[in-house]
Amino acid sequence: MASPFDALLRPRSVALIGASANPTKLSHIVLKNLSKGRFRLYPVNPNEEEILGLKCYPSVLAVPGDVDLAVVSLPAAASVAPVRQCVEKGVGFVIISASGFRESGPDGAKLERELMAAIRGSGTRLLGPNTLGVYVPSIGLDTLFVPREKSVRPGKGAIAVLSQSGGVSVSFLEKAAEAGIGISACIGLGNKIDLNENELLQHLSFDKATKSIALYLESFSDGRKFVEVVRKVTKVKPVVVLKSGRTRSGSAAARSHTGALASSSDVMVDGVMRQVGVVRAYDEEELIDLAKALAYVDHIDGDRICVVASAGGFGVIGADFVESREHGVGLTMARLSEKTRDSIRKVVPSYSSVSNPVDLTAGVTDEMYDAVLKGLQADPGVDGIMMSLELQPPNITRRLVDVAERRSRSRGAPIVISAFGGANTQNLLREFEKRRVPAYPTIWRAIRALAALHKRGLYLRRSK
Amino acid sequence: MASPFDALLRPRSVALIGASANPTKLSHIVLKNLSKGRFRLYPVNPNEEEILGLKCYPSVLAVPGDVDLAVVSLPAAASVAPVRQCVEKGVGFVIISASGFRESGPDGAKLERELMAAIRGSGTRLLGPNTLGVYVPSIGLDTLFVPREKSVRPGKGAIAVLSQSGGVSVSFLEKAAEAGIGISACIGLGNKIDLNENELLQHLSFDKATKSIALYLESFSDGRKFVEVVRKVTKVKPVVVLKSGRTRSGSAAARSHTGALASSSDVMVDGVMRQVGVVRAYDEEELIDLAKALAYVDHIDGDRICVVASAGGFGVIGADFVESREHGVGLTMARLSEKTRDSIRKVVPSYSSVSNPVDLTAGVTDEMYDAVLKGLQADPGVDGIMMSLELQPPNITRRLVDVAERRSRSRGAPIVISAFGGANTQNLLREFEKRRVPAYPTIWRAIRALAALHKRGLYLRRSK
Repeated sequence: MASPFDALLRPRSVALIGASANPTKLSHIVLKNLSKGRFRLYPVNPNEEEILGLKCYPSVLAVPGDVDLAVVSLPAAASVAPVRQCVEKGVGFVIISASGFRESGPDGAKLERELMAAIRGSGTRLLGPNTLGVYVPSIGLDTLFVPREKSVRPGKGAIAVLSQSGGVSVSFLEKAAEAGIGISACIGLGNKIDLNENELLQHLSFDKATKSIALYLESFSDGRKFVEVVRKVTKVKPVVVLKSGRTRSGSAAARSHTGALASSSDVMVDGVMRQVGVVRAYDEEELIDLAKALAYVDHIDGDRICVVASAGGFGVIGADFVESREHGVGLTMARLSEKTRDSIRKVVPSYSSVSNPVDLTAGVTDEMYDAVLKGLQADPGVDGIMMSLELQPPNITRRLVDVAERRSRSRGAPIVISAFGGANTQNLLREFEKRRVPAYPTIWRAIRALAALHKRGLYLRRSK
Repeated sequence: MASPFDALLRPRSVALIGASANPTKLSHIVLKNLSKGRFRLYPVNPNEEEILGLKCYPSVLAVPGDVDLAVVSLPAAASVAPVRQCVEKGVGFVIISASGFRESGPDGAKLERELMAAIRGSGTRLLGPNTLGVYVPSIGLDTLFVPREKSVRPGKGAIAVLSQSGGVSVSFLEKAAEAGIGISACIGLGNKIDLNENELLQHLSFDKATKSIALYLESFSDGRKFVEVVRKVTKVKPVVVLKSGRTRSGSAAARSHTGALASSSDVMVDGVMRQVGVVRAYDEEELIDLAKALAYVDHIDGDRICVVASAGGFGVIGADFVESREHGVGLTMARLSEKTRDSIRKVVPSYSSVSNPVDLTAGVTDEMYDAVLKGLQADPGVDGIMMSLELQPPNITRRLVDVAERRSRSRGAPIVISAFGGANTQNLLREFEKRRVPAYPTIWRAIRALAALHKRGLYLRRSK
């Protein structure tokens, strides 16, 4: 294998320890989810011959051949013995999904120490405990104990997700699926007794399918190491971090939720993040939004933004968000060159505004958008474009998606799209996801994405 | 009629001047939209006998009986003569939908002056020009020139919308429809040559169906009057204002878009808004979000918030947003009384956190939510509750909607819900809309809504 982590994220063989024949059990749900994957699957259960048509093994030791990944789907107290067997078998990675460890008190903490002892000195690595495990759509690897009927999964894509909270992961996956956003992998960190964000970040920086990394953290496993690792990772690809527990109450809650140690003050965290080129997000929606823009566009090369809209109102709102520092991102509204203004004037109605924001009015056509975007992309004074797209004007057709995609792939300032509206607009947004053009359901989210691209551009220039 | 404005918003008879038989014309679309309304409808067109089975009249003067509302769906230059006829007929209100007036240059400005002259001294009032007009779902009044197939409309509800931008209105309506949010009326202000936000605000403050007012403005018609009017309106019901053109570029754009005069500095606007109890929003999504919370709950009586979640991560993120001033709303995390903590401890798993945020863990049940919310509502130290609701835990059922609704209707701290996830979650959110329980697809939006309720509560206490 190319990387030792392939046994975790691209396993050829997976054992499910504690696989149940009872459809109401979580371990049965995991078996069902795993059964769709492209790898050899071995249910382990000493009391069953066969489940879902798959031959059962009495223990992982009885499984013929190598086991890359073992998922232990048993209560906390019953999880230690199978891990010892995994070590004996030489299993590459073990995922422990049970909760009831450190986060539940002294008894759980003792079990956790036993887990650590079990793998110490071995080649077997452990993810968790208290984790949903991993979801890798490209090979159908799905260790989540949540039924797919209840919680839809996203398809394959360019964003890798690392998360210290199962609930946040699942909601993230559902939301991404709903919006048509693909992911390269989702990894639940759980209690991080062995594998933690630092090693996984490092691995993901080499993963070709991953264009950006979204990280939800409640605590740092090793803050110093994080800084060292992430500084290298951000040179290669963008990293967005949602670090919760920023406030007094939040950090106390994080402590009780994951048994995490108290973090340093958020002001310090913020300074360090900025220094090492991490883009911060403050909620789960922003985490997806920014990871997406960074995955699709990577960065923009300056702070001069042009806003184009067919509904003048949205142009005004967009301009406000670009310029305002209080309720906005504090970037600059680009001054269009005379040449650009002339090129726009040629194609728009006489009553359109050809300054920035460009107001195409309800008389807008697909071709007008095309020509105007082309003109703006040729203007060296424009670093990024926010295109507010409304489907309501009578001469706008679905071909506008092709126009926007073509212009996005062209040289010149990158384009971020916003489209605010009902079901038709939602479909349009999903269409953009398929083509990896960053598009958002509100102007604010589009402008915020541009600001993240600008931060990344700044960092890349500064670190050269 | 109870109010002279009933002729605009609850007309018994409507004339459509310029009704076309050609299905591709905007005025035909308006006729179709109006034909579903519960009022007498008179198409006016000298060249047709009948359109869509409705008898046509050569002019508004030929219509038998009174006309409460006339919609003029003709090009700008052809709009003045019919308005004169409306005045002669004694029509109550005229809506001019055409653009091409002040916003398009000197010729348009001249036409606008002619419109003003036409109604001067008469009892006929004018909405627009350059407006989509009005949409009142309760009586099926729909003067929008956007086909319903292309742009879905919301049902009846408690929010009134006043908007100076047609594009913003339509997107707002679509988004509300998509989310299942109802409205009492949507009124497009257009160029405001006669009717403006001040008179309409005043009227809406008496409208029983309207529980809150959402206002999108690019310019004040009369700032001094606005302050005077809105000060009275906010005593009676909440007003949310999205005032764009806050920045240098934004206000220049607003000027060219609606021909609006430059506004005072945004710092001044902000101070005045606060003083008269207006809640400010900064984009179209926030405008809906806050108007909804204010319509359903009106206010909360203090700043002490309790966060309840089943996914611990969301509890942490929620606590951060409550407490942080930088990336949050700067409210207070409530300290739960010993009695409340005991009452919670009785119903939750032993490993749940019974401090604030309350972490119910994945073992949560519908009944657990019920008991915990009841306990919190009985605690005099809790002013508002943010309930983060996840559908994924195995023992959560759709009955949780009933639980949340019942608790929302109970005495004690109001509840705002957040639910982040895919299609199932979206359906759940629509269910809450039907029951007028404020619910949002992200934690941030829920906390922001609580902050708006807190602002309103503060204002009501201060102005007593």
